[in-house]
Amino acid sequence: MTQPKYVYFFGAGEGEGDATMKLLLGGKGANLSEMTNLGIPVPPGFTISTEVCKFYYDNEKKYPHGLDQQITENLQKLEDSLDEKFGDTENPLLVSVRSGAAVSMPGMMDTILNLGLNDDAVKGLITKSGNERFSYDAYRRFVQMFGNVVLRVDHDEFEHLLEEKKKNKGVTLDTELEASDLLELVKEFKHVIKQKTGSDFPDEPRRQLDMARDAVFESSGNPRAITYRRINDISEELGRTAVNVQAMVFGNMGGSSGTGVAFSRNPSTGANQFYGEFLMNAQGEDVVAGIRTPLPISELRNINPDAYDELVAIGLKLETHYKDMQDVEFTIQDGTLYMLQTRNGKRTGQAAVRIAVEMVEEGLIDKETALTRVPANDLDQLLHPSVDPGASVEVIAQGLPASPGAAVGKVVFTAIRAEELAAEGEKVILVRSETSPEDIGGMDAAEGILTARGGMTSHAAVVARGMGKCCVAGCSDLFINEEALEFIVGGKRYGEGDFITLNGSTGDVLNGQVSLIQPELSGQFGILMEWADEVRTLDIRTNADTPEDAKNARGFGAEGIGLCRTEHMFFGTGIDAVREMILADDTFERKQALTKLLSHQRSDFIGIFEAMAGYPVTIRTLDPPLHEFLPKNESEISDLAERINVDVQKLRERVEELHEFNPMLGHRGCRLGIVYPEITEMQARAIFEAAVDVSKRGIKVLPEIMIPLVGHINEFSLQRKVVDDIAKEVFNETGTRVEYLIGTMIELPRAALTADKIAAEAEFFSYGTNDLTQTTFGMSRDDAVKFLDDYVKNGILEYDPFQVLDQEGVGSLLQIGCEKGREARPDLKVGICGEHGGEPHSVKFCYGLDFNYVSCSPFRVPIARLAAAQAVIEAKS
Amino acid sequence: MTQPKYVYFFGAGEGEGDATMKLLLGGKGANLSEMTNLGIPVPPGFTISTEVCKFYYDNEKKYPHGLDQQITENLQKLEDSLDEKFGDTENPLLVSVRSGAAVSMPGMMDTILNLGLNDDAVKGLITKSGNERFSYDAYRRFVQMFGNVVLRVDHDEFEHLLEEKKKNKGVTLDTELEASDLLELVKEFKHVIKQKTGSDFPDEPRRQLDMARDAVFESSGNPRAITYRRINDISEELGRTAVNVQAMVFGNMGGSSGTGVAFSRNPSTGANQFYGEFLMNAQGEDVVAGIRTPLPISELRNINPDAYDELVAIGLKLETHYKDMQDVEFTIQDGTLYMLQTRNGKRTGQAAVRIAVEMVEEGLIDKETALTRVPANDLDQLLHPSVDPGASVEVIAQGLPASPGAAVGKVVFTAIRAEELAAEGEKVILVRSETSPEDIGGMDAAEGILTARGGMTSHAAVVARGMGKCCVAGCSDLFINEEALEFIVGGKRYGEGDFITLNGSTGDVLNGQVSLIQPELSGQFGILMEWADEVRTLDIRTNADTPEDAKNARGFGAEGIGLCRTEHMFFGTGIDAVREMILADDTFERKQALTKLLSHQRSDFIGIFEAMAGYPVTIRTLDPPLHEFLPKNESEISDLAERINVDVQKLRERVEELHEFNPMLGHRGCRLGIVYPEITEMQARAIFEAAVDVSKRGIKVLPEIMIPLVGHINEFSLQRKVVDDIAKEVFNETGTRVEYLIGTMIELPRAALTADKIAAEAEFFSYGTNDLTQTTFGMSRDDAVKFLDDYVKNGILEYDPFQVLDQEGVGSLLQIGCEKGREARPDLKVGICGEHGGEPHSVKFCYGLDFNYVSCSPFRVPIARLAAAQAVIEAKS
Repeated sequence: MTQPKYVYFFGAGEGEGDATMKLLLGGKGANLSEMTNLGIPVPPGFTISTEVCKFYYDNEKKYPHGLDQQITENLQKLEDSLDEKFGDTENPLLVSVRSGAAVSMPGMMDTILNLGLNDDAVKGLITKSGNERFSYDAYRRFVQMFGNVVLRVDHDEFEHLLEEKKKNKGVTLDTELEASDLLELVKEFKHVIKQKTGSDFPDEPRRQLDMARDAVFESSGNPRAITYRRINDISEELGRTAVNVQAMVFGNMGGSSGTGVAFSRNPSTGANQFYGEFLMNAQGEDVVAGIRTPLPISELRNINPDAYDELVAIGLKLETHYKDMQDVEFTIQDGTLYMLQTRNGKRTGQAAVRIAVEMVEEGLIDKETALTRVPANDLDQLLHPSVDPGASVEVIAQGLPASPGAAVGKVVFTAIRAEELAAEGEKVILVRSETSPEDIGGMDAAEGILTARGGMTSHAAVVARGMGKCCVAGCSDLFINEEALEFIVGGKRYGEGDFITLNGSTGDVLNGQVSLIQPELSGQFGILMEWADEVRTLDIRTNADTPEDAKNARGFGAEGIGLCRTEHMFFGTGIDAVREMILADDTFERKQALTKLLSHQRSDFIGIFEAMAGYPVTIRTLDPPLHEFLPKNESEISDLAERINVDVQKLRERVEELHEFNPMLGHRGCRLGIVYPEITEMQARAIFEAAVDVSKRGIKVLPEIMIPLVGHINEFSLQRKVVDDIAKEVFNETGTRVEYLIGTMIELPRAALTADKIAAEAEFFSYGTNDLTQTTFGMSRDDAVKFLDDYVKNGILEYDPFQVLDQEGVGSLLQIGCEKGREARPDLKVGICGEHGGEPHSVKFCYGLDFNYVSCSPFRVPIARLAAAQAVIEAKS
Repeated sequence: MTQPKYVYFFGAGEGEGDATMKLLLGGKGANLSEMTNLGIPVPPGFTISTEVCKFYYDNEKKYPHGLDQQITENLQKLEDSLDEKFGDTENPLLVSVRSGAAVSMPGMMDTILNLGLNDDAVKGLITKSGNERFSYDAYRRFVQMFGNVVLRVDHDEFEHLLEEKKKNKGVTLDTELEASDLLELVKEFKHVIKQKTGSDFPDEPRRQLDMARDAVFESSGNPRAITYRRINDISEELGRTAVNVQAMVFGNMGGSSGTGVAFSRNPSTGANQFYGEFLMNAQGEDVVAGIRTPLPISELRNINPDAYDELVAIGLKLETHYKDMQDVEFTIQDGTLYMLQTRNGKRTGQAAVRIAVEMVEEGLIDKETALTRVPANDLDQLLHPSVDPGASVEVIAQGLPASPGAAVGKVVFTAIRAEELAAEGEKVILVRSETSPEDIGGMDAAEGILTARGGMTSHAAVVARGMGKCCVAGCSDLFINEEALEFIVGGKRYGEGDFITLNGSTGDVLNGQVSLIQPELSGQFGILMEWADEVRTLDIRTNADTPEDAKNARGFGAEGIGLCRTEHMFFGTGIDAVREMILADDTFERKQALTKLLSHQRSDFIGIFEAMAGYPVTIRTLDPPLHEFLPKNESEISDLAERINVDVQKLRERVEELHEFNPMLGHRGCRLGIVYPEITEMQARAIFEAAVDVSKRGIKVLPEIMIPLVGHINEFSLQRKVVDDIAKEVFNETGTRVEYLIGTMIELPRAALTADKIAAEAEFFSYGTNDLTQTTFGMSRDDAVKFLDDYVKNGILEYDPFQVLDQEGVGSLLQIGCEKGREARPDLKVGICGEHGGEPHSVKFCYGLDFNYVSCSPFRVPIARLAAAQAVIEAKS
């Protein structure tokens, strides 16, 4: 029996893997083999496959039989190919050990550089490099990194010793320390490791390698990685990591060495220009971690024009090869360029759209591929507000424009605080010296991120772009005192709660709250949307309650209204008439009060029908419980009683009488219209009178009247009859008929479960997934905030089900309802109007159930259009 | 093509129908044919089938083609068989027209007697009967009855004229009026009919017949009939009526005539003795309506021994033939006995049990038939309270013991008031001169019913027995002034709101609130329960929270506990410890407070395990939201703060913090145990320590720990782990293990929909149908009272879904959950512990889904046992 292959070698122009093997080798490993095969200069090495990671977690953290031997063999091959040896005092092999899953997860996995160093090997490195200081610095860095990442000794323990050392030597920069200082530090680091872990630092290189491998696999199961996967919707399979062991090359060997990252196009704007940053005399992590602020890549042309030209050529070659924008890492060792990684580059939504459209124009990809290249949710970034150019602003500092858009919020200094205040509904700007993976939750909660250190590829910048969140990075003018919860800039102090505004497109930090404006949608955006419209089959409607919303939504491409809530008309100028209605002693008085509301409603409907000329408009009859319209406290009650001339005691009693223990499950929805049919009558009259009015002026109207909160067919039948009767009356009175449909919200489990009965009389279903999620989970959205966050953080629920449709539970009701409904009425029109209607996963799920449309807020209409197109394309593959 | 047969003749010893044709001919019609075939003296006639009723309602109140001709033919046959003719001046045919559905619905349908009388026919009747006064009285009664029932002229219009006439003549009784007075009354009645309806009274007999037929069909759709069908769960099909047209015989032809009703056994006690009442010189409705108080049937032996013996013989023959207790109506015309109706007699629960058991002993029926003869819900009556024999009572009046049991309540005088006060939670006694079908709602709402007039077969008595409600009827000592809302008895006045006590078993009316005691279960009850236990396959458990409840439930035959709620232990003496726990600042403090609760819970569990020795005990972990344990208002808050020495502001803030908008959908159930695992830990420890303690004493314990409100498998997994860990700890500490199961309540739609996932880890499911109904309907039980009553009254919902399981909606989740659960775990134990667990329809539904058990309140355990047996028997047929 042949042993399974767990380890794949790359080097000497040949890789055992290739780019198609990402699931097995991780993205990094697969691409290292692929680049090797393409003849690109890559330091040799080998990849331990993700199968091992799976085995590790499936078998109580044990390794498969034979792995050890395969590592030994590949290590031998590596030593042979370089003529180096682990621990050799003359020509020691040093390697990097890096994680790499199928999907790139920046900052989530831990990396070890310079592995193989010990007291013997450092001598070999000195011999080989001829640079004692560099060698001891490499040793110091290795012990520190290994101590922290593998042996889990707190970072601060090492930093503290380093700071002490600099203080004792009277210097301020690491680079000012001498070789002997660094050697002492190595000893001190090993001492502290012994103290903290109880064991000696492992000097044996193979043991170092095995321990580093363990740490990589371990890190793929750590809470940070799990959180990242959750936020980014990465399956466990895609999240399994490989381990890449690769011969070290050094960017910190002196002035002719350096390291950097580059993109084949601009990841922020999408412009087709080679883009990147580098630092001379630095190791890779220095650039990514954002500790020193790097130089733009164009500067490299001045320092090493050959390397620059080679790098640009490789970038182009890789982009053409992968047919996507590439994000590469490189190191120049003593003037020679080495590529350490290539991957499809992360980009802003704006860049994604531009790159996708331009690559089609360049003939590199086809339209459908272009559509899949833009994560639908990322369009949100294009639709984000920007700083009003007309606003008078006070620029208090300038940093790097790390992620576009603009944000206004209160300053906070910790991720936790950001989450707390955001949970209270505050808009916050997270201000940090630099961010780290622990801050992800707070970054997610913040409106925008401001850092004092780090470049365009720093953690803050990369993560913020991924989140589509405005970010200004490397704003070195800022003096941040995290303990005092303040930053000082230009002599002015900003404390927690002070407002600032960020312009992520310019890097400006502005004083106070500056007015923001809606973005203009670029030409490429329009092109992409046209392509999406050609492909998609789902109609995209919007939830809009006013003529203004309806007009806006048309601008975003909405093809009708899926949910027009009528209660806003009740809350507006009509509220006192509503209250009179509620306080009426009998049907007659109630009808009198309702008459006052009729013209308000009618004129609103006229405006909406006009805005949606030719498109369907779904109008929901009154939904909220009546007590929502009444005053809550004693002073409001007495004010109102006086104003509308009602006995205060009567008003108080009515408020008391209408109180509900569980308003969500109370007297609302169609239950109102059943007990007070005159409310439905008035609303139906307003709708039909408006429809007739608009229709008479030659504008096509397609009203769809939607009865909310139906649980039993009998409720629907009764309300349908009320509406049909009024339609007949209005058509008779006006001598004009308009076509209309009557349907229902499916927002109670019972409605979905008895959908066949309901569809026998209802012409359309619109899933109200907000309420359906509440009832299916038995969880009030308002009250669940107290524990739902814990649930998601602890992985009890994968997502907040109020944001992403719960396909397993609520989704099965969508399926049952859709199937049963279409059984009874094959041409039943089915849509969704809950907030999930604009969430890409949910849109794709609805496509899978063969819905006719999704409806979402105007702002999310483009996202739904793209997601609907992607659903078609994904279903084909 | 043969015309469908719509009309069925019976007479001259032969009927075209028989007893099997109840659905087609109604119960009355089928039995008239059957009796005719049995050679029992039945006046001839014919039945218009229920098919015609269906046609009438399906075809906008039109009749099928050919019906008219068939009626004509059968009328001819009837005339021929009696040698009488409609409208004849010498030998006129007079008929009764009566409704009759497949299921008997007393008092719901309207009856016309003496149809065929007009100015000509009355002469014939005089000739034939030789009794002018009788003949005009018959004519007067007919016009009055027809005018009221068919022509819908108010009853009072006729009564008013009758009273006037008596006043003018200076007499008090109807019987004191002379023939000429009665003739005048006929004219006056016809005049008022003309005034009120605008048409002349129809003199043509065939037209009278057609109009009476119309009225019968119409009455089957009237609101009273619909209400009766709803309350008694009669389907539309079973509620369709036939029309019986039968030659009149007269019980009011003089002293040798009479009429009555009789039962082959005592319908109140079940004793095997011929039982009944009659009135001489009276027409049938006089007995049933309860206007005159009739004589016991044994008196008939003295008046007409031949008729008495014949009647008893017929009763016995019919009972033997139908193998069930019979309720017959008879008339003696001039000394000759005629049977007008037989049907299975209504009976009290007590009588049902005794008759069923004795008929098995007599070899008349088998045990399974006996089990189906007792409506499971009627057992409730046997379990009703009775007057404490040790109580000192003041008997203020005595009436007939019309329906057994005892009741205490406030006097009310109208059905509406009874409903109003009952809705406010008051216990009321409905006091009426006599009841009528309009009073059904109020009778249903009252604890007991007291009437001044009418016998054991009066409306009040029959309906009360059907409802299992205590009733004292015909209490003629009472002087009721309905306008003044008072009754006077023995010179003492009782007004609305005064308390009285009824003893329905003795007929005593008692002053004030007398103490009641629980019934002893009779020997026959025990026998029937044994038979039920032999047949049934469902286990019957009980919901019991205390050792006392558990012991009681064992007495009722409970085979374990299906739901032990642990929160009552929190609400009791432990409440301040619970509050300390809620106010704790950290887990440590919380655990300290919980420790105080441990011993309380443990000793409760010990008592429960002991009471349920050898039977499973399902214990639910804490369910209610924490705010339920905190004080609500400011003064309670400051009292508590002082008592437990907490800062009042802190307490206030915590109360505020724990406030929920929708507590039903809030932080409760397993969501508590997930956020505060230490609560579950303490409860698990109390359970296992108790189990070990009891087990060590040689008592078998079968704890089943139930996690409430699970919506997602991950919630269950986390709580299961907490419980399992504690079990291990306790078993290690004590060196004793007990077997246990861990399962979950299925009370959220999501749990049922993902039951396969949950069953992978849960060993049992118990459906919490109270909450499941709330979430499936999106209806809070507390808030729904405001509209649910309207819903049921208006037929939007057939039943209150909190009383009778909604099989269509909630039931489909039970089915889905059960199927999916057993897919994942074939031996999954499934039960129900909502209040539906003791409701017969719901028990049968659970049997149909192959549940393992149902669990209900101790009091309803016998009902569930019987229903479970009936489910098995019904499934066979």
